[in-house]
Amino acid sequence: MGDASESRFELDTAVERAAEGWGCDLRQRWHTGEGLNGGYLLAVMVRAMLGEAERPDPVTVTAHFLARPAAGPAKVRTEVVKRGRTFTTVTGVLLQDGRELIRTIGAFGDLATQSGPSRISTQPPDMPRPEECVPFSDMLQRAGRRTPEFQNQFDLRLPADSPWFGPKEGEPYEMTGWIRFRDGTEPSTTSAVAFIDAFPPALLGSMRAGGAPTVELTAHVRARPAPGWLLGTYRTRVLLDGLMEEDGELWDCEGRPVALSRQLALVLPARGD
Amino acid sequence: MGDASESRFELDTAVERAAEGWGCDLRQRWHTGEGLNGGYLLAVMVRAMLGEAERPDPVTVTAHFLARPAAGPAKVRTEVVKRGRTFTTVTGVLLQDGRELIRTIGAFGDLATQSGPSRISTQPPDMPRPEECVPFSDMLQRAGRRTPEFQNQFDLRLPADSPWFGPKEGEPYEMTGWIRFRDGTEPSTTSAVAFIDAFPPALLGSMRAGGAPTVELTAHVRARPAPGWLLGTYRTRVLLDGLMEEDGELWDCEGRPVALSRQLALVLPARGD
Repeated sequence: MGDASESRFELDTAVERAAEGWGCDLRQRWHTGEGLNGGYLLAVMVRAMLGEAERPDPVTVTAHFLARPAAGPAKVRTEVVKRGRTFTTVTGVLLQDGRELIRTIGAFGDLATQSGPSRISTQPPDMPRPEECVPFSDMLQRAGRRTPEFQNQFDLRLPADSPWFGPKEGEPYEMTGWIRFRDGTEPSTTSAVAFIDAFPPALLGSMRAGGAPTVELTAHVRARPAPGWLLGTYRTRVLLDGLMEEDGELWDCEGRPVALSRQLALVLPARGD
Repeated sequence: MGDASESRFELDTAVERAAEGWGCDLRQRWHTGEGLNGGYLLAVMVRAMLGEAERPDPVTVTAHFLARPAAGPAKVRTEVVKRGRTFTTVTGVLLQDGRELIRTIGAFGDLATQSGPSRISTQPPDMPRPEECVPFSDMLQRAGRRTPEFQNQFDLRLPADSPWFGPKEGEPYEMTGWIRFRDGTEPSTTSAVAFIDAFPPALLGSMRAGGAPTVELTAHVRARPAPGWLLGTYRTRVLLDGLMEEDGELWDCEGRPVALSRQLALVLPARGD
């Protein structure tokens, strides 16, 4: 599919220059059950910041999630911190009813003209092909769990023996899966920030918890993805006093590293505990 | 050593409330040869942000390095984004002569009262004891390289067979070493942000390059360190078109994970190339 006007991601993350910043409309269909998906919200803000930066790629973006936005109109206020030779640094503030809900900062550049040495000493994890994997929503259904609404935007597939449902004692919490947009929209450096947060927290597969709200998320987008599936792999190594990091990697179907991410999240007690 | 007034780190990162923000004096002895050490600069800013947050620990801090500060007086302007139940979110701007050089954002909390589940599925790497390791400055001297001035603040020791001088083909760039302040100052959650950037880039041990200026650095401080040595381990997996990430971990001498960090840096061509 090449027509952006038919892409749900493009439509739902659209921003429009307004009196003070950028106007947008946050869509209910990106709801997780707890709130709007953080990657979706970040993608909306990245589109406003890209507009301000006048550079095509979000190279490193950090978001602090302060409170949960609701579906509906919102405003993104942007500020150019510096227009440099290689990057434009921009901050963003997401507001609803005048209240600040998310603060971002990012450096925007052009990955197509970026040049210098390359040396990659890691590879995408071994995985069965997408056709051999199980849709995540099927897995949830079998486990008697509901599929979060925003997952309907994605086609997310995990290997049949995914450790998501029961990691071994002492092993890191981790999960690996294939992902793409369900409507056929091809991935981009902008949607990479949404894909990076579209996987369920590795830890929640095996632990009773009341959710894992993100405090801070940083995504480095390193390459423009080839059309097709993305491979995502996620890992939590240190859950300490209710705080955990989650490290993510996104690879395109040609084996290129598209994005590296890390977030810090609070692990809430399960309801009723 | 318990007297903060005799600690060089405490003295050199001191900030004082001024008319608009915080005044500080950036000290030449934290110079790397290219500029003042990023971890030192971040520690100065963290001290101002902590003053504003009125909470004791920097739990996640992100810095965008826009231009190099010089030794001498500087100002840190701080803004409280939100005072929440668990964290206070604060931004910082480092200015010299009215010019913005570094922008930060961080969430500050209290790791002593933070509570919730814990599960750690990683360990500090195997290492010979500090007494069996080689001072980094000795290694540099043997290799005919000069010790950067700021390294005199630290006692940094690497194993005699450190892969820093010659990683194997295809292996990740990585290094592991012991570190502490040379004057005996014990580590803290504030100095953790300086320690995290005190190791030489893993990649520069084996590659001719004109330096690796940090674009963005995010540090998660996860625990208050025990007195004594810290173990730091650093790894670069994806150097792509002159951009690399460097992932760091800091462990205290009791095996507690003190900090996780990731930075995005530009790898500059070697002089004369």
